[in-house]
Amino acid sequence: MNYRYSKKLDSFSSSAVREILKLTQKKSIISFAGGLPAEEHFPVAAIGEAFQRVLAAGNKALQYGLTEGYLPLRESICKWMSHKGVTVTPDDMLITTGSQQAIDLLTRIYIDPGDVILVEKPTYLSALQVFRSYGAVLVSVDADENGMVLEDLAAKLKEYRPKLVYVIPTFSNPTGKAWSMERRKGALELCRASEALILEDDPYGELKFGDSSIHYPSLFSLDQHPLGSCVVYTSTFSKTVAPALRTGWVMADPEIIRHMARAKQAADLHSSSLDQQTLHQLMEHFDLAGHIEFVRKEYEARMRQMADLLAEQEWPGVTWNEPKGGMFFWLELPESVDTAELLKTAVDLGVAFVPGVSFFADNTGKNTMRLNFTHNDFEGTVTGMKRLNEAMQTVLVK
Amino acid sequence: MNYRYSKKLDSFSSSAVREILKLTQKKSIISFAGGLPAEEHFPVAAIGEAFQRVLAAGNKALQYGLTEGYLPLRESICKWMSHKGVTVTPDDMLITTGSQQAIDLLTRIYIDPGDVILVEKPTYLSALQVFRSYGAVLVSVDADENGMVLEDLAAKLKEYRPKLVYVIPTFSNPTGKAWSMERRKGALELCRASEALILEDDPYGELKFGDSSIHYPSLFSLDQHPLGSCVVYTSTFSKTVAPALRTGWVMADPEIIRHMARAKQAADLHSSSLDQQTLHQLMEHFDLAGHIEFVRKEYEARMRQMADLLAEQEWPGVTWNEPKGGMFFWLELPESVDTAELLKTAVDLGVAFVPGVSFFADNTGKNTMRLNFTHNDFEGTVTGMKRLNEAMQTVLVK
Repeated sequence: MNYRYSKKLDSFSSSAVREILKLTQKKSIISFAGGLPAEEHFPVAAIGEAFQRVLAAGNKALQYGLTEGYLPLRESICKWMSHKGVTVTPDDMLITTGSQQAIDLLTRIYIDPGDVILVEKPTYLSALQVFRSYGAVLVSVDADENGMVLEDLAAKLKEYRPKLVYVIPTFSNPTGKAWSMERRKGALELCRASEALILEDDPYGELKFGDSSIHYPSLFSLDQHPLGSCVVYTSTFSKTVAPALRTGWVMADPEIIRHMARAKQAADLHSSSLDQQTLHQLMEHFDLAGHIEFVRKEYEARMRQMADLLAEQEWPGVTWNEPKGGMFFWLELPESVDTAELLKTAVDLGVAFVPGVSFFADNTGKNTMRLNFTHNDFEGTVTGMKRLNEAMQTVLVK
Repeated sequence: MNYRYSKKLDSFSSSAVREILKLTQKKSIISFAGGLPAEEHFPVAAIGEAFQRVLAAGNKALQYGLTEGYLPLRESICKWMSHKGVTVTPDDMLITTGSQQAIDLLTRIYIDPGDVILVEKPTYLSALQVFRSYGAVLVSVDADENGMVLEDLAAKLKEYRPKLVYVIPTFSNPTGKAWSMERRKGALELCRASEALILEDDPYGELKFGDSSIHYPSLFSLDQHPLGSCVVYTSTFSKTVAPALRTGWVMADPEIIRHMARAKQAADLHSSSLDQQTLHQLMEHFDLAGHIEFVRKEYEARMRQMADLLAEQEWPGVTWNEPKGGMFFWLELPESVDTAELLKTAVDLGVAFVPGVSFFADNTGKNTMRLNFTHNDFEGTVTGMKRLNEAMQTVLVK
């Protein structure tokens, strides 16, 4: 049988890198590649108790649920977000299968083939994949240590009249950077003036390192505009509780939420309501804030360890900055190095990372790489860095 | 802010009917509308035990999983399907967020705007919604008691050269019909000859009533062709275990599965792996076949009760057939009656159904309705039918 696929099919095609990374599932390989939280810190007992509470509440817990999501969970999340300066009601909100689905659903209702989306340079690779699958034209905006460069944003808003601007302003994937307040307010103002909707992806906002007196308010909390918000905000429980529950949420103007809910109804009717109810019980009966603080500290210690190990290396021409939060180090190697090639050597030596090129909409950054520091324990990280050093020695000129 | 939505937006728009049906969430209304299983028969204790087994296996259970789905669950489903004449491996299969997502993902990789999809007349309304959202042109094929009319299918395959033919051959939603063997084999042959891919939606296949010696093999099991299957098969645990776990699966040629997995990666990375692992434990340690047989008998008794109640009514010009399985009765009223109008009266009187027009791609069937018989208990059904009779009396001419 000759299958007659959609013309869109190529936009979903797998990359060579992904094929190599499949190899990293072998136990012998230490992976700095995935964006995996530390398994040993999952609140397993609390999840077990929360689940028993859900089942004890009766058989109705196992029936079909609302597309918009389990109402008590939405209420708990609203309460949670109110401590972060966000005033929303459950009507301004949709529960999704991870924040990945929020990105997908918004693109689905908002983007036509040929529409321009502005993205950070670099940015989350799976968002790029979604945008491309809907035929969007991706344009990168320059970024520095403080976030998107406002002059470049202004110029590109003017030139391309984009419908959407996708950003991870707080502890970016892949760079671990946090935007300054000036950039946050400036970007908001520029996007509102040019009627470009901002999609703010915030999976890492709870994982802040360093000076605890510094706060990074979300663009969404800074916006809260009476004439309709220009920010769609998404976050997830994947990094703070556990990824297996696949539960994220998206907050926006209720009109946008209503349209996204209809798209979700077509996509999967609703997300697992067992997981949603379990998370609701967890939020009500477990010290989630305390748990997050515990995980945050652990991750900061792991970040410190990797920073120290990186500082010990003698890698001429390789630079990085200490992440302000999140889960990743971002390395720039000399221009001559292709990290996708280097990955093959590294995997042979028993260590993996993600070549940076996948995070660039414009296919640049071939000399960059992303290292995850949250998943491996101290010992694993030491061994992994030794192996990475061996791989580095094959490409770096002394 | 002026939101600049996608041109596709209208395809997701809510219907007047859906708005009315929201009212049926009130406790005072007896609903024959939803496709809800009976809550009192959910295997709550077994699900609780299965979940504890998952957590006992260690923290890794809560980590990110594979997009394709939890491998042991895929293996268990393959074993399960082998008793139904289907020989597949986990590579021929993808776990989805309900079978709704399987419909969505296949459409996403297979259909371009303007492509024709043939559908039964009538058929599952949420599949129509998905197809429309991707810009497909829907063409209805005539159906009678034995399934799609082969002459009409042949004519429409020739006229439209459709890429896809969507069918629910075993206990259809909304009609409860089962295709004869002749129609199954005939449709397969015609579709293969014209290179039209068949999407076989089979959520109800386990819920068979009447003569237990009659079997309805899936089109997928009849196909199993060495040169690539022409059938994509999807089913779900929603009707046999519980909907809250939102776990379905899709089986097809591994090339199609590979493409669907890439689309799923963009859509939501993977479905809840907690639910998947729980279902795997359930399949290994619980008598699922025995449970399904218990539910099946219960549903057959409820179907019988509603058949008897319908037979008692004096409704001139109203016809129906006994469902061969599944969850629904399908009623045809006199041509003069608009059931969408009748629904308003019915809801005022405290009972709800789904007007049939939503199940027709060609917007016909305004005088039809779907009644669910699985969700209400005996007493509820008696009361609901009394109220429905009151509503009927307002439109039926004596």
